Amino acid sequence: MATVRLLSDEEATAEARAVFDDIRATRGTDYVNHFWRGLANDPQALAQVWQEVKSVMGPGSIDPLAKEMIYIAVSVANACTYCIHSHTAAARGKGMTDAQHSELMRIVGLAAKTNHLVNAMQLPVDEAFQVGTGRQS
Amino acid sequence: MATVRLLSDEEATAEARAVFDDIRATRGTDYVNHFWRGLANDPQALAQVWQEVKSVMGPGSIDPLAKEMIYIAVSVANACTYCIHSHTAAARGKGMTDAQHSELMRIVGLAAKTNHLVNAMQLPVDEAFQVGTGRQS
Amino acid sequence: MATVRLLSDEEATAEARAVFDDIRATRGTDYVNHFWRGLANDPQALAQVWQEVKSVMGPGSIDPLAKEMIYIAVSVANACTYCIHSHTAAARGKGMTDAQHSELMRIVGLAAKTNHLVNAMQLPVDEAFQVGTGRQS
Amino acid sequence: MATVRLLSDEEATAEARAVFDDIRATRGTDYVNHFWRGLANDPQALAQVWQEVKSVMGPGSIDPLAKEMIYIAVSVANACTYCIHSHTAAARGKGMTDAQHSELMRIVGLAAKTNHLVNAMQLPVDEAFQVGTGRQS
Amino acid sequence: MATVRLLSDEEATAEARAVFDDIRATRGTDYVNHFWRGLANDPQALAQVWQEVKSVMGPGSIDPLAKEMIYIAVSVANACTYCIHSHTAAARGKGMTDAQHSELMRIVGLAAKTNHLVNAMQLPVDEAFQVGTGRQS
Amino acid sequence: MATVRLLSDEEATAEARAVFDDIRATRGTDYVNHFWRGLANDPQALAQVWQEVKSVMGPGSIDPLAKEMIYIAVSVANACTYCIHSHTAAARGKGMTDAQHSELMRIVGLAAKTNHLVNAMQLPVDEAFQVGTGRQS
Repeated sequence: MATVRLLSDEEATAEARAVFDDIRATRGTDYVNHFWRGLANDPQALAQVWQEVKSVMGPGSIDPLAKEMIYIAVSVANACTYCIHSHTAAARGKGMTDAQHSELMRIVGLAAKTNHLVNAMQLPVDEAFQVGTGRQS
Repeated sequence: MATVRLLSDEEATAEARAVFDDIRATRGTDYVNHFWRGLANDPQALAQVWQEVKSVMGPGSIDPLAKEMIYIAVSVANACTYCIHSHTAAARGKGMTDAQHSELMRIVGLAAKTNHLVNAMQLPVDEAFQVGTGRQS
Repeated sequence: MATVRLLSDEEATAEARAVFDDIRATRGTDYVNHFWRGLANDPQALAQVWQEVKSVMGPGSIDPLAKEMIYIAVSVANACTYCIHSHTAAARGKGMTDAQHSELMRIVGLAAKTNHLVNAMQLPVDEAFQVGTGRQS
Repeated sequence: MATVRLLSDEEATAEARAVFDDIRATRGTDYVNHFWRGLANDPQALAQVWQEVKSVMGPGSIDPLAKEMIYIAVSVANACTYCIHSHTAAARGKGMTDAQHSELMRIVGLAAKTNHLVNAMQLPVDEAFQVGTGRQS
Repeated sequence: MATVRLLSDEEATAEARAVFDDIRATRGTDYVNHFWRGLANDPQALAQVWQEVKSVMGPGSIDPLAKEMIYIAVSVANACTYCIHSHTAAARGKGMTDAQHSELMRIVGLAAKTNHLVNAMQLPVDEAFQVGTGRQS
Repeated sequence: MATVRLLSDEEATAEARAVFDDIRATRGTDYVNHFWRGLANDPQALAQVWQEVKSVMGPGSIDPLAKEMIYIAVSVANACTYCIHSHTAAARGKGMTDAQHSELMRIVGLAAKTNHLVNAMQLPVDEAFQVGTGRQS
């Protein structure tokens, strides 16, 4: 059960339906997933978030599949069940292989481990990082 | 101030110094950053984490720079100050441009926003995601 | 499934039942929700938490509905499914309109986005914030 | 130290300076805080975030001070040092009293405590919450 | 539904099956739980994580039951549903009483509350903590 | 800088000073750390939190040092800088050895890694965990 109603096309306002239509056209499918149907309760927010997703996840300086993997990484750290499912599906749709998924999970797991080790040690930041010499943890 | 001592080469055990030396050889620099000097209080953990970092962040099926950006994304979501600094420096060392850094931040910011929107709505996962049709939030 | 048993009135100790009764009297309903039935395994904790909830969420200097929205905001950020459901229901019971729920979600989403942007940038705190001049991010 | 440069008016692009000017005009002050000077490295993101802040935090169905307190609550849960400082200053600028700040902290603290108790117990959501009867945890 | 397939013994590679066998031998049971069957998609990661679990959770300087309770505490704070279930079951298998479980939850709840209070107040760290005089919050 | 004033004995109310005195008597030291001096802005909250700390962290069914390590674990996961420092100092005051601190960090790091792996895989909970057979991840 959700805390908001998931609006069908018939229940959505004209403004929301226009976003649904753009989602369909952009993605080349009739399917509009729950995220958008929940957001449709606030048509202005729906339009804003969809524009932001199109802009941020569209062509840019980072590879589209890498973008989806970054999205998954944040969603895992924030424990967002729905987001992990939707963006893992999206990444697979963009060609993520099983090997890449496994490697992504290794990176996320290692980062979480070192994040917690570092927080436990409360380390001062190295001066060297300030000048961008490229040292990693 | 840290909760552990940052060990100099002289203070580290022989096992820890061997890891320091491998870090230096692998990275082609004399500099060993605070993370490793803190971990050196537990030489076995130091060796294990360094092996894991070398293995996970080494050559694989995901581009090395994309790996660093995934690492940054997790570290931001986990609010790890030191990790954000060290991996941003590492990403720059691997060629991350200002445009890519800006785009990374846009993705991380958008993901966090939709993570919270989705958590607030408590959306049920679409059946469609199960068959890997590649729809994103 | 839960990690603890949800105690019925018959299974609860006399101390726990007394808390159940106070919950019923305070809320004007016979229904005692799962949170209290789980906590009833530790009657002293049950009594302490109920007193704290009554004290903190009772009349004070912040509007009762605003208090519930603050509670939802924390629960969303901490990804607590049950809490999001229970406090969204509570907020609706205190008169939260659909427009207010939508606006709450926009604020939570924006805050999460800027939290992550700020963490990524590792910004130093402005001196100006110290004197309380009221500038926001 | 930050992971990006904080741009002065002279270093910012014309597009970024236009946002700075709108911030100044909207807030009635010459001071532009670090958040915007860091974001100015990505003028398009700067403009987008500023528009979103103006829209979301502007007049609506929730009291302006309650909005700031919700923002603080999310920022505390996400452990965003800068955000906590900037939005606490903003809330004080909008009239938050010491009593309200104390009460806000009590709510945030209680919510975090019950969030963790609930996560530990892994409680199933009550059917009653689905019909909006307004029961709280 | 999971984002990866849970591999049966027949579907797993020989390397993964060898880990399954070691899990069975170490634990004295035929049952291999979902975590390992999901990780089996990446046999090398499966082997690495199993070795780390055996090493870290095996005999050492901290009591085995205390180790499980620490594991639960982290899992609750990170909102990991599966982990909370699996490690609560593991702790019970190692003798955790109902009284200890209740006390664990009180500590986790209190820690979360003070964590959020402290984050809200943005307290400077006391000099006294640096010399290890043992003062607690 | 903090978002609240740290009150000296002279600035605190009589109610707050009485708590300071009880802290001193209970701990056998004159030193009152920043946490209590910040909370003293809300004397009622100060008294409530101090009572809860005394009750929860006092004698019970879990070893006092294990309690402190659980507290540290939650604080690390919640990225609370001050709390990590104060409770690491407290644990050392209660006899935590360097070996135990190292082992604690290994557990916390491993838990965080598996928490993220599990969240990424979105595993269904095993039926076996429901009957308390004691299997761990």
